[in-house]
Amino acid sequence: MQKKIKRTSKFFKKASKKAGMSPGALVHVGEQKVETARITLMSYDQAGFEERELRRIEESFAYKDRPPVSWINIDGLHEVELIEKIGTHFNIHPLTQEDIVNTDQRPKVEDFEEYVYLVFKMLRFDDTTGHITSEQVSLILGSHYLISFQEAEGDVFDSVRERIHRERGRIRKSGPDYLAYALMDAVVDHYFLILEKMGERIEHFEEQLRVQPTPELLQAVYDLKRELIYFRKQVWPMREVLGAWQKTESALVQEVNNAFIRDVYDHTIQVIDTIESFRDIISGVMDLYLSTASNKMNEVMKVLTIMATIFIPLTFVAGIYGMNFKYMPELEWKWSYPMLWIVLVAIFCGMMVYFKRKKWL
Amino acid sequence: MQKKIKRTSKFFKKASKKAGMSPGALVHVGEQKVETARITLMSYDQAGFEERELRRIEESFAYKDRPPVSWINIDGLHEVELIEKIGTHFNIHPLTQEDIVNTDQRPKVEDFEEYVYLVFKMLRFDDTTGHITSEQVSLILGSHYLISFQEAEGDVFDSVRERIHRERGRIRKSGPDYLAYALMDAVVDHYFLILEKMGERIEHFEEQLRVQPTPELLQAVYDLKRELIYFRKQVWPMREVLGAWQKTESALVQEVNNAFIRDVYDHTIQVIDTIESFRDIISGVMDLYLSTASNKMNEVMKVLTIMATIFIPLTFVAGIYGMNFKYMPELEWKWSYPMLWIVLVAIFCGMMVYFKRKKWL
Amino acid sequence: MQKKIKRTSKFFKKASKKAGMSPGALVHVGEQKVETARITLMSYDQAGFEERELRRIEESFAYKDRPPVSWINIDGLHEVELIEKIGTHFNIHPLTQEDIVNTDQRPKVEDFEEYVYLVFKMLRFDDTTGHITSEQVSLILGSHYLISFQEAEGDVFDSVRERIHRERGRIRKSGPDYLAYALMDAVVDHYFLILEKMGERIEHFEEQLRVQPTPELLQAVYDLKRELIYFRKQVWPMREVLGAWQKTESALVQEVNNAFIRDVYDHTIQVIDTIESFRDIISGVMDLYLSTASNKMNEVMKVLTIMATIFIPLTFVAGIYGMNFKYMPELEWKWSYPMLWIVLVAIFCGMMVYFKRKKWL
Amino acid sequence: MQKKIKRTSKFFKKASKKAGMSPGALVHVGEQKVETARITLMSYDQAGFEERELRRIEESFAYKDRPPVSWINIDGLHEVELIEKIGTHFNIHPLTQEDIVNTDQRPKVEDFEEYVYLVFKMLRFDDTTGHITSEQVSLILGSHYLISFQEAEGDVFDSVRERIHRERGRIRKSGPDYLAYALMDAVVDHYFLILEKMGERIEHFEEQLRVQPTPELLQAVYDLKRELIYFRKQVWPMREVLGAWQKTESALVQEVNNAFIRDVYDHTIQVIDTIESFRDIISGVMDLYLSTASNKMNEVMKVLTIMATIFIPLTFVAGIYGMNFKYMPELEWKWSYPMLWIVLVAIFCGMMVYFKRKKWL
Amino acid sequence: MQKKIKRTSKFFKKASKKAGMSPGALVHVGEQKVETARITLMSYDQAGFEERELRRIEESFAYKDRPPVSWINIDGLHEVELIEKIGTHFNIHPLTQEDIVNTDQRPKVEDFEEYVYLVFKMLRFDDTTGHITSEQVSLILGSHYLISFQEAEGDVFDSVRERIHRERGRIRKSGPDYLAYALMDAVVDHYFLILEKMGERIEHFEEQLRVQPTPELLQAVYDLKRELIYFRKQVWPMREVLGAWQKTESALVQEVNNAFIRDVYDHTIQVIDTIESFRDIISGVMDLYLSTASNKMNEVMKVLTIMATIFIPLTFVAGIYGMNFKYMPELEWKWSYPMLWIVLVAIFCGMMVYFKRKKWL
Repeated sequence: MQKKIKRTSKFFKKASKKAGMSPGALVHVGEQKVETARITLMSYDQAGFEERELRRIEESFAYKDRPPVSWINIDGLHEVELIEKIGTHFNIHPLTQEDIVNTDQRPKVEDFEEYVYLVFKMLRFDDTTGHITSEQVSLILGSHYLISFQEAEGDVFDSVRERIHRERGRIRKSGPDYLAYALMDAVVDHYFLILEKMGERIEHFEEQLRVQPTPELLQAVYDLKRELIYFRKQVWPMREVLGAWQKTESALVQEVNNAFIRDVYDHTIQVIDTIESFRDIISGVMDLYLSTASNKMNEVMKVLTIMATIFIPLTFVAGIYGMNFKYMPELEWKWSYPMLWIVLVAIFCGMMVYFKRKKWL
Repeated sequence: MQKKIKRTSKFFKKASKKAGMSPGALVHVGEQKVETARITLMSYDQAGFEERELRRIEESFAYKDRPPVSWINIDGLHEVELIEKIGTHFNIHPLTQEDIVNTDQRPKVEDFEEYVYLVFKMLRFDDTTGHITSEQVSLILGSHYLISFQEAEGDVFDSVRERIHRERGRIRKSGPDYLAYALMDAVVDHYFLILEKMGERIEHFEEQLRVQPTPELLQAVYDLKRELIYFRKQVWPMREVLGAWQKTESALVQEVNNAFIRDVYDHTIQVIDTIESFRDIISGVMDLYLSTASNKMNEVMKVLTIMATIFIPLTFVAGIYGMNFKYMPELEWKWSYPMLWIVLVAIFCGMMVYFKRKKWL
Repeated sequence: MQKKIKRTSKFFKKASKKAGMSPGALVHVGEQKVETARITLMSYDQAGFEERELRRIEESFAYKDRPPVSWINIDGLHEVELIEKIGTHFNIHPLTQEDIVNTDQRPKVEDFEEYVYLVFKMLRFDDTTGHITSEQVSLILGSHYLISFQEAEGDVFDSVRERIHRERGRIRKSGPDYLAYALMDAVVDHYFLILEKMGERIEHFEEQLRVQPTPELLQAVYDLKRELIYFRKQVWPMREVLGAWQKTESALVQEVNNAFIRDVYDHTIQVIDTIESFRDIISGVMDLYLSTASNKMNEVMKVLTIMATIFIPLTFVAGIYGMNFKYMPELEWKWSYPMLWIVLVAIFCGMMVYFKRKKWL
Repeated sequence: MQKKIKRTSKFFKKASKKAGMSPGALVHVGEQKVETARITLMSYDQAGFEERELRRIEESFAYKDRPPVSWINIDGLHEVELIEKIGTHFNIHPLTQEDIVNTDQRPKVEDFEEYVYLVFKMLRFDDTTGHITSEQVSLILGSHYLISFQEAEGDVFDSVRERIHRERGRIRKSGPDYLAYALMDAVVDHYFLILEKMGERIEHFEEQLRVQPTPELLQAVYDLKRELIYFRKQVWPMREVLGAWQKTESALVQEVNNAFIRDVYDHTIQVIDTIESFRDIISGVMDLYLSTASNKMNEVMKVLTIMATIFIPLTFVAGIYGMNFKYMPELEWKWSYPMLWIVLVAIFCGMMVYFKRKKWL
Repeated sequence: MQKKIKRTSKFFKKASKKAGMSPGALVHVGEQKVETARITLMSYDQAGFEERELRRIEESFAYKDRPPVSWINIDGLHEVELIEKIGTHFNIHPLTQEDIVNTDQRPKVEDFEEYVYLVFKMLRFDDTTGHITSEQVSLILGSHYLISFQEAEGDVFDSVRERIHRERGRIRKSGPDYLAYALMDAVVDHYFLILEKMGERIEHFEEQLRVQPTPELLQAVYDLKRELIYFRKQVWPMREVLGAWQKTESALVQEVNNAFIRDVYDHTIQVIDTIESFRDIISGVMDLYLSTASNKMNEVMKVLTIMATIFIPLTFVAGIYGMNFKYMPELEWKWSYPMLWIVLVAIFCGMMVYFKRKKWL
């Protein structure tokens, strides 16, 4: 039962928990995915970097206006007071705070003078169940800091951390806006991995279809189609988000980074294009399945028809001479039996020729 | 008969009653849902609040320009004189009055200098019948007052009342424009509840489909699809309404509330996105149903074909030796009968091998 | 044959009659629906009104610039000289004249300084045939007059006439632009009546589908779908017409009437929304029909398969012991016959269990 | 083989002939449809007109800047030098020249200061084959001349010529821009004729479907659908062409003619609307065909099932008493045979009642 | 296995290789298609041209600012250092460098002051497998040079080289922007060749469908549909690219060439139009296949039903008189047997008449 509800419920926010609350009220909507929230801080500039886990959120407050870039990452959104403390210190609008803890936001970007708020979905494809799971990521981009909120530990940002550690690329030379870009880029790059896995499934289905189309296959194709619909619903708004981000006039986003944002934008459009193509292909696969099933049926029917059509008249003839009438002259004739065989074989051959002509054989 | 008509008639206004009337004529279009109209007044500011039921509408007139915020709520639209009195006192355009009593308005927002007119649909999902019912809500937003018109008692606004009572959130500190926002927010939040219930139904259908697809299931899926079409038709124009409200330049709407309106707007878009996803999923369910039915048919046909194809030739052979010809040498041979059995078993086995090869078994 | 051509021909103008004529040439395209054209005049202001039938069109010329509002209505378009006379006196552009007599115009609004030309379709739903018939209405809106052209007598304007007679609403206080609005409003209100009737038909089809789906039903659904396509084609351009009228800068349309035009515009959009919903519902009905038919087939096949599968082996067994071999030991045994019955019943019961397990029974 | 290639090849330009040529290179792409190009000249003003066939293109050069309007018409595009000569004398851009001889242009309008280039498709419906054939028409509109290029002799412009001859309408009083309009109008008017013929075919198919749906009918419906797709592809861009022409700021197009261009524009939109409606109707016809076929199948299956279900048990019973067991007490009883008949008739009647209840009879 | 993955993987970039890299990192994504990169240089002006293969990329550096036009072509993208060297010398943005080596770019045009970057797909249709293969082409358009990057040797640019060699058209008189245009034109012209081949396949399928619809045909139609989806995905963004290029304000693109760019733009739109038409036609072909299969099934079923329905009652009658009851008076009558034959023939004839009436014969 639990599992069933999870399947469509991922399409909309858990309304029953939240409906009727005052807007701006901090209520965590969504599954609690970690025991306690985990706070990590990474502060870096060209000269070096500092990375540590914080036990209390207050430790991070000093980094708010300290010049090098600070990245504060919070895993776990159910500790509402934690969010409130950050909100108070970093001066975050109550609606933004509400959006952070409500894990069913539509991806969006909002510019509040002092910070830019970005929210989007980190998606994962579970290869065993074939389901896409979604985790909400919120970014608060300030002048010297970037705060990221995630629902659970474990993310696709290791490559970004790696780059900071090893001073690869321009990340250590750039501000928190570049960091925000790098995180989104990592998320969108991960979408391609999902596409790859879905593509492999489609391949597999096509292959199966040629070999042996089973009802289970059809169910699997349907399930994949459903996940595609979900995938599309999550990625589609990213287009607007990145479009809006490109056009933002916020002083917090440096123009030099526009080329990078355009790049993620292009990737997102490519993801969307591919999802659309996959949808087309999948509906083709379903059509093909139906046609193949219909072809099989046709074949089955032909076998039945051929057998029945050949033997039903023969059986009738045999039935005739099985009758017990007293006066049936044929029964007495000497050559009746062999002649009957000749007739039966003739009927049989005639039928075969007829079916050959009809191209049923 | 009554019930039948109700099903499509909810898609359009009761034309026969209204057609040919002078525009601006006050005629209540729609079902009468309450005995007598009920008027409640809630007046509040940061200091406190007053709530009472009015026996005569004239009691509310004093609140028109009185500084604290006053919320006048009318349940029941069939008492046309009541609406006319309000219209005269609060200076409401005849077309607006007509729109209030005609309960088949398309959701819209209209700015008449002195007030802003908002009309939209409060929807409910009846879990037993599986139907969505709709109630029209009109809001007249003035400088110090908000008048809301509903068709019947009972609404989704209790949470808003609660917030006023308990002084939760910013509602007691804000003007009637914030109140209008809070009401719309409550309505849109309720849409999510409907989505949740519809989602559960879809889950249920998918589950059923796996277990046992019945014609009743198909009918139920079709009914749900129909309700989705209706839901979509009601919610779709909300997008424009909220978009227009965001862009309104009316002095009655304070800019500070724009973030809130944008929030409801985002929610509405999310509802629409989810409805579209549900439509896709439901059409997938219908396809799956058809394919499953076709698979079952295939299976039935195979059983028939296998049985018929095996036994028809055997029966023919038996028929041959049931004939009564006088000269049939086989009949006299001693080992005819056992040999015949060998032949029959051979035919049977041959057939089985053939079907195994065809993967029909 | 005649009837057949009428069915699709209503989708486009009778090209063969008109093709290759000089543009601006007055040729009546369409069926002649009245014997002689009928001209009526209604002249009114707040003080009173005058209504009479004119025998010659020249009688109306005096009303062109006379201050109170004059409504000249012409039923019948085949008397081309009549149109020409009006055209000359009221200074109407040749293309407008051509559009008036060519009854296959796409609805449109055109602003010629001196007058505004409006053309749209008055639709009727014939309940016996289930067909929508269309009549073209042209309006010439001048400073003091409104000329309306219809193809035949009988229209949906009686309510407007009534309002002028009884001095209801604001019509007697307003100019010819308000009259034009009132006429369009009457036409669009009538569209709702058509929707209502179509909605009832859809209800009826849905009901029938549950009871007994027949091929005739399918044909009827198809016919309704066709009428919906036609309805949509006629109403769709009204959206643009009313949108353009709203934005017109013609001095002939007073701004105070804008709220009214917006009102008809909203109604038109609602009609279009409902047509789209109906199209969705009807395609759902067709799908449901197909599925139901396929379900019935399945049921038929199951009965056949069950009967055949049970009796074919039994018949084979009976056939075996109908053979006339001389040496068949079973035939001589005393308990053969009762034992055979036991075998037959066992086969029968086994089959029944098998079908029960397959849920075919 | 030749015929096959012609069917899809009409959807795109003969790439193999042209691919890789320098742009601006004059290569005639398309079938050669006339032996030699034919040049006719028609020069007219209000006073009179001159019409003659030219043997050499040079004869037309004098008309370039001569005040009355000159219409030079060329039938046949394969004589590339001819086009080049005109191009040089009339100062036509190489790309325009290329477009003229390449008969697979997308309809478009291009404004080159000195002239306006219009290209569009003249379509014909061949009633015997049911195919639409397309001929490219290019117009070069200069200050005093209009040059038209066609692929073959025979066109839909006779009505325009007639009007010039007989001085009908305003054509003799207007410039070459009006002539260009008149030609396009003739072409678009002819589209209506095609619609009419297609509409008749659709009618015919619907009629046939009711009487006797054959596979040939389905093929014909498919063929018509294909032609509709082609028709749509050719007409769709006309919308943009005429829209662009309306908005052109070229000094060569007089504003007074705008009303006329808007008129052709409206007609084109009407053609497109009707094509869309036809597509909807045709897909409805295909669905109806499938459903009808499925209904027939159902009926066939019912007959089979009824016959088989009734006689299979009866035959089994007869088989039982055809067995040759020595000890079968029933065989000896006197009333066995009549009783058996009673049993058989009872089974038969029971079956009939069962089928009646199932509404299969 | 390898082949399978290639089929969908062409829809998206090889994410697994690239995901998580620093943006701007040069990693070749895609198959390595050549052993070593091959560099060719073609330098030309009106006076003459120089063409040679370079062994080291440094040899090309001198051409950067040298007045006549230089076209540097690189086949093979896996030698990342080569690209880096070019990037450093020609001052190419790191993101552009990354885009060049990552062969899964969405077509786009980007204006970096000093150069314009164009990337698009060169497509090929492999006639034996029926698959479209794609090769990425990047162009760096500078003031005096054009650098083109391809994945492999062999391209569709030979016609452009030919024109430079033979001084055909305006290429030798124009700058590198015209060369860029010429290359895109060659690529788009090649798209028409693909359309031609696909069109031929569709023709072939239609022909086959009439003759003998096999499951293999259906699979082939599905495969073609898939390739069409891929084709469309590749060509669709070209529209935006060329639209953007038309509107570019880069000083590197001379306005005189705008007519040419518009020309390629028109061709691209025509390709897209045709792809859409093909998609429509193919989905028609699939529908037709299904209907044809369903028709064949119908025919098979009719044969079965006719045979079974005729002979099952006859066999029953024969069975009756095969019974061994002691008291069956008919068996003793003299004319029983001939009379029985009369009855059997009568039943047979009755059935035939019935089927004739039902139009099953």
